[in-house]
Amino acid sequence: MSERLTLSLDAMGGDNSPRIVVEGVNLVLKELPNVDYLLFGDEAQITPLLEEFPRVRERCQVRHTTDVVDNDMKPAVALRSARQSSMRLAINAVHDGEADGVVSAGNTGALMAIAKFVLKTLPGIKRPAIAGYFPTRNGDTVMLDLGANIECDADNLVQFAVMGEVFSRNVLGIVEPSIGILNVGAEGLKGNEAVKKAAAILENTDLPVKFYGFIEGNDIPIGTVDVVVTDGFTGNVALKTAEGTIKMVGFYLRQALMSSLLSRIGAILASFALKKLKFQFNPSRYNGAMFLGLNGICVKSHGGTDAYGFSHAIKVAVEMISDGLNDAIKEDFAHLSEHTEKELRAASG
Amino acid sequence: MSERLTLSLDAMGGDNSPRIVVEGVNLVLKELPNVDYLLFGDEAQITPLLEEFPRVRERCQVRHTTDVVDNDMKPAVALRSARQSSMRLAINAVHDGEADGVVSAGNTGALMAIAKFVLKTLPGIKRPAIAGYFPTRNGDTVMLDLGANIECDADNLVQFAVMGEVFSRNVLGIVEPSIGILNVGAEGLKGNEAVKKAAAILENTDLPVKFYGFIEGNDIPIGTVDVVVTDGFTGNVALKTAEGTIKMVGFYLRQALMSSLLSRIGAILASFALKKLKFQFNPSRYNGAMFLGLNGICVKSHGGTDAYGFSHAIKVAVEMISDGLNDAIKEDFAHLSEHTEKELRAASG
Repeated sequence: MSERLTLSLDAMGGDNSPRIVVEGVNLVLKELPNVDYLLFGDEAQITPLLEEFPRVRERCQVRHTTDVVDNDMKPAVALRSARQSSMRLAINAVHDGEADGVVSAGNTGALMAIAKFVLKTLPGIKRPAIAGYFPTRNGDTVMLDLGANIECDADNLVQFAVMGEVFSRNVLGIVEPSIGILNVGAEGLKGNEAVKKAAAILENTDLPVKFYGFIEGNDIPIGTVDVVVTDGFTGNVALKTAEGTIKMVGFYLRQALMSSLLSRIGAILASFALKKLKFQFNPSRYNGAMFLGLNGICVKSHGGTDAYGFSHAIKVAVEMISDGLNDAIKEDFAHLSEHTEKELRAASG
Repeated sequence: MSERLTLSLDAMGGDNSPRIVVEGVNLVLKELPNVDYLLFGDEAQITPLLEEFPRVRERCQVRHTTDVVDNDMKPAVALRSARQSSMRLAINAVHDGEADGVVSAGNTGALMAIAKFVLKTLPGIKRPAIAGYFPTRNGDTVMLDLGANIECDADNLVQFAVMGEVFSRNVLGIVEPSIGILNVGAEGLKGNEAVKKAAAILENTDLPVKFYGFIEGNDIPIGTVDVVVTDGFTGNVALKTAEGTIKMVGFYLRQALMSSLLSRIGAILASFALKKLKFQFNPSRYNGAMFLGLNGICVKSHGGTDAYGFSHAIKVAVEMISDGLNDAIKEDFAHLSEHTEKELRAASG
């Protein structure tokens, strides 16, 4: 029933590439029967893997290049010098219409810089953002920005709110997603100028956005809102703090369950439930950060992920493409940008 | 053996005051036999509680006032208008030498503003910070700032590093505490100007500070460093995100253990271990945020805490007093301020 899609993959990005890339494709072959892949990278390394997974080979085309973007390469350097890199060529394929989206587990800063340069931002959007899923008591929440924009003004935050809203509605199917701005207190008088001004704009706007107001760090895992809006510095720290905290609790839980014979027996009896819980919080299940606001679908996989995590990033990209996310953002921004600009002018004036 | 100390308590701060305050004192009567208390607040509410806990009454003096600082009062307003409030009078007692330290569960912003105005900052310190404990795999880490300074420059962050180092060494007894600056990546090229400049100062300084470098959010719960330095916005969000994440994992753990008969039996067998784990992550065990850099000891208890949590905040204040923390900070700053200023001038120039 569904049309065929093509994803371009940076086969050389990430700690265990190109293996995780090829194995990641293998894991979703059945689930995504309508997707073909362009693999950018070193043929000498990729070909033996395709021989190992012949069914993957049928759906892949290899585009040879030996140049790669290092993890410690500055974005500006990567942009200037790595024009034949697997990352750059994979992004070019989206720009040239050969692929519908790109997935890379490489250097985040370089990926964003190159994607922004090659694909450009959607009309009306000043800065693209990195969005990701956050596990909560209420299912998953979307949070943005996760690190693309270290310093943000009110204008950026309002645009993140609108992009997050469109994402939540179109990709997650939430009818009227609620938007919260991350702050150090729920009262209006707290926080920096950017969050206060962004909240004032969203409160008084006639944009069709359901603005909840300010939320605090503990509201994220509660799932108080569907979309958490914040600057890239705070968002990155919050996400990684939560990831580390989940691991720490798991560490102490294991330690507690091993502490006596009785608790060990208890752990064996509860092992099925505990395994399910462990799977629920497996970071690979949340792998795949979405670049929003670009003229093309771009998903960043965690560099240290495994094949399962990479396969999840592939699925995220396919969802974004299938739900016509960028067209929806473009359309909404066309309607909204007038409002937004008016509000921003009013707030600045 | 030990000298007698006096703590002044804002008996009206917090959601369940003055009950939690009186009951909190009751919980530490035996453990802290050398501490007396000044209770500032409404006699009509406090006296019946002291009748309920006659042993607390023997160690307390009540100073009557009916004025209180509301939770939603702006700091500047509280500073100007609430001069007869329980919070203000409790802080005054420290300034007047009647008490060795103050504990309040009231409005954080007002408490910091009044404490700063009444007690003043220690010589060489531009802005006091709020520090707190963070549970990690490696025991507890100290993190600052947790919300007193929403925007920080490199100068502030360097001072936080020095105060945190002195705290960790003197109060926690860590011989050579390592200091990390919270950032969005471990590489030097990431982050905002303030963290980059602060790191450059701490790397090149001849201050006797063991600077680890940048850490990321996930390093906090790992316990990579002994002291986490960050601005008040990020620190507040990180701490609350971690608290919320611990609760969320607990929620799903309970759900998982209740999901089948077998896992329920397992949970019963492991109940002792699980209760110990629950206690380990009880937020009351971490209650008591420390104001560092003031000319007087001031501890902020969480507003929603219970008596156990308030008693923990009392213990934190007594530790800070007993270890002569402020004298240690003053002494270190006298030695260090020359260096710091030289470094800062060099970095700015």
